[in-house]
Amino acid sequence: MEIISAIAVLRETLKGRQPVAFVPTMGNLHAGHIALVEQARRQGRCVVVSIFVNPLQFGPGEDLANYPRTLEEDCRRLQAAGADIVFTPSVQELFPAPQQFQVEPPAIAGELCGAYRPGHFRGVATIVLKLLNIVQPDCAVFGKKDYQQLHIIRAMVRELNVPVEIVAGETVRAEDGLALSSRNGYLSPAERAEAPRLQRQLAQVKDAVEAGQQDFAALESAAAADLAGHGWQVDYISLRNAATLQHAQPGDTALVVLGAARLGKTRLIDNLECASN
Amino acid sequence: MEIISAIAVLRETLKGRQPVAFVPTMGNLHAGHIALVEQARRQGRCVVVSIFVNPLQFGPGEDLANYPRTLEEDCRRLQAAGADIVFTPSVQELFPAPQQFQVEPPAIAGELCGAYRPGHFRGVATIVLKLLNIVQPDCAVFGKKDYQQLHIIRAMVRELNVPVEIVAGETVRAEDGLALSSRNGYLSPAERAEAPRLQRQLAQVKDAVEAGQQDFAALESAAAADLAGHGWQVDYISLRNAATLQHAQPGDTALVVLGAARLGKTRLIDNLECASN
Repeated sequence: MEIISAIAVLRETLKGRQPVAFVPTMGNLHAGHIALVEQARRQGRCVVVSIFVNPLQFGPGEDLANYPRTLEEDCRRLQAAGADIVFTPSVQELFPAPQQFQVEPPAIAGELCGAYRPGHFRGVATIVLKLLNIVQPDCAVFGKKDYQQLHIIRAMVRELNVPVEIVAGETVRAEDGLALSSRNGYLSPAERAEAPRLQRQLAQVKDAVEAGQQDFAALESAAAADLAGHGWQVDYISLRNAATLQHAQPGDTALVVLGAARLGKTRLIDNLECASN
Repeated sequence: MEIISAIAVLRETLKGRQPVAFVPTMGNLHAGHIALVEQARRQGRCVVVSIFVNPLQFGPGEDLANYPRTLEEDCRRLQAAGADIVFTPSVQELFPAPQQFQVEPPAIAGELCGAYRPGHFRGVATIVLKLLNIVQPDCAVFGKKDYQQLHIIRAMVRELNVPVEIVAGETVRAEDGLALSSRNGYLSPAERAEAPRLQRQLAQVKDAVEAGQQDFAALESAAAADLAGHGWQVDYISLRNAATLQHAQPGDTALVVLGAARLGKTRLIDNLECASN
């Protein structure tokens, strides 16, 4: 496995190694990332994983400075998972001058997590486009855990005609149902014990929808109230059309319930797809 | 020469034909475009020319509906110039749904022509990125006649890491100095006779700068006043740093004087690079 931090070296190294499958990450890898790498392994001849904590997608007061950086351990896990190349650019390599061109995503980027993290998805779209242009992969794998991000990247690739196939990876969960996330490491033991409630509430919404319940607002409110009653600060619990991420309407068949809520200082997100009738 | 209007067919056709040199146009081709095609011919094994009148870059009240469309004659000229592929997508092919993702250029896109055509360079940047993603050329040729456009595209490619070399083509002029432009066809005979004054005024500024004159504002004002005195409505005459397009400062060595002005209903632009000491 090669570890490369220069764009020019990466491009040179990738010549003739197509098809390339790409997994962009911010490092601090867990089993969820590794599942994406294994999925990439099945897609491409050469698997490239990037590790880059992207300043563009962090807002003021967010955890950019404290975001866990564990490069050595990450590389050990990536080697075991069969990655071929780890791309670890510096901030200077990706932003030799302040980034002036941005990819401006549509209004959906201002809803859900975007309503609580202004500019976040602009930063995500911009860095992902840069990385896709650098790696030029045949396919790129993004986890469903960041469902809104996956949606926005799919739309960006379609609308900007980026020549890449976007592949979705299933969310990996701890035994108690908590979706794996680098930010789980911020949780105290008591918060960690409480954390699976988010997924349980989303599962209740999913079960109700799949049982035919159509009062979506009532389901969202009930889940949010339960979380708030157990000490969470709820950003949103929202049922959406899985294809458009617009608010779910009776008659939609493929839905997704998404949630974001904070336990202490840690913001957790999760989602579950639901099949309505 | 092949004429292709479907993205999928173009991509399939281009397989194995690298290096590709690309010339994006809006059609109604003149000798200036043909010079870019000949320049591309010297760069790539396969020369692709696109013809697409991009609605994103026209403002309300501009000449989108009336912009001259002369596909048959364009193809005849392109064949003679040695183009291999003409890409003529429909609006539906490039925008199957309303374009929601836009490339947002930096503040310089709101100056010069951008101050008179709000959103123009966002539309240019977005369509050029789409076309570059579709054609995936090794190099793309843009004329210096649209100097601000060339500047913005160079910056976009650099900042978004688009894997393409941008090549600049020299402006082609009529014998009387008028820069060739599709919009020259809008001019009445009397306007056509008057039109070279724009270039003559820019040349006077250039000569003065190269002779050591450093009162740039006086030079700009004098040129604008002369044009206004001959019936032009002047949008701007502006001396800029050629590398940054920021206002020229004494001590800058590579400058460019840019002008935009209207004769009747026709808006003409032009520019000349100057070497100061």
